[in-house]
Amino acid sequence: MKELHLRPIGVIHSPHQQAAGTPVQSSLATGISGTVEVLPEFAAGLKDLEAFDRIWLMYWFDRASPYHPTVKPYLDTVERGLFATRAPARPNPIGISAVKLLSVEGNMLTVDGMDILDGTPLLDIKPYLPAFDAVQAEKTGWCGQLQVNAVLADGRFETDSKAGSKTK
Amino acid sequence: MKELHLRPIGVIHSPHQQAAGTPVQSSLATGISGTVEVLPEFAAGLKDLEAFDRIWLMYWFDRASPYHPTVKPYLDTVERGLFATRAPARPNPIGISAVKLLSVEGNMLTVDGMDILDGTPLLDIKPYLPAFDAVQAEKTGWCGQLQVNAVLADGRFETDSKAGSKTK
Repeated sequence: MKELHLRPIGVIHSPHQQAAGTPVQSSLATGISGTVEVLPEFAAGLKDLEAFDRIWLMYWFDRASPYHPTVKPYLDTVERGLFATRAPARPNPIGISAVKLLSVEGNMLTVDGMDILDGTPLLDIKPYLPAFDAVQAEKTGWCGQLQVNAVLADGRFETDSKAGSKTK
Repeated sequence: MKELHLRPIGVIHSPHQQAAGTPVQSSLATGISGTVEVLPEFAAGLKDLEAFDRIWLMYWFDRASPYHPTVKPYLDTVERGLFATRAPARPNPIGISAVKLLSVEGNMLTVDGMDILDGTPLLDIKPYLPAFDAVQAEKTGWCGQLQVNAVLADGRFETDSKAGSKTK
């Protein structure tokens, strides 16, 4: 198949300089804010965005290690298939985070729930629509035992946001 | 910023040959199944996936028109900022769909809720985790008036899945 090209549309500014200590999901990063700097040439596309209170950020795991078909998730002791995890070492290392949008000023967004490493290239912004994105899922595989409370207590989880912890 | 490269990891097979008539979101496509063919070289990464009953498919809107900073959503009469919509004509034309996983056989997945055009290049598969992905969002901007019932009655909505309707 032919190769596809992406162009960063901005950069994510975050207090997280390294994976150690970085919350592994936005829902575990409440109270941690950051900014999303959109390149001026794309700022016109931000019109109407401030009327949403949650948005998807899509970004490039620029510090991920190369793809490996299995990984050992942080809270597990067994190697799992990569596509059954949210680990960053993917064939196409794209992460998604549903963050809370606090403000839009020109080409700068301020968001809460920052679980992304500082300097991460931004690929896309989409509105979060509960009717489509908040769906039912009963079976959650190896994550089934790892309930949210356990995750919150531990503060870590094998997800999108471990951009470097497993990879450097 | 430097250019980033993607490689398709498979292809999506769907009954939808053209955007007209294609459900605009997976949650509006219940009962419509399709298959996801993962390239054999990535099949090992599918281990453990069948224990999840919902997955994110990430794919390339290969039939989208070039980026334009504003679009007129299908159920709206006003031009909206592109990033406040899920229209496919994005700087990086990547779509996401949370589909129901019915089976995994070798490198072939069968899924329900197919809202993607036939032949669409597959970029990634991630497990859907309600604790992280099903989050609260009260303000939904211009979509606020467009409640789910209205969408269901009409059968269309401005979302990820309109891969071609606005673009060809």
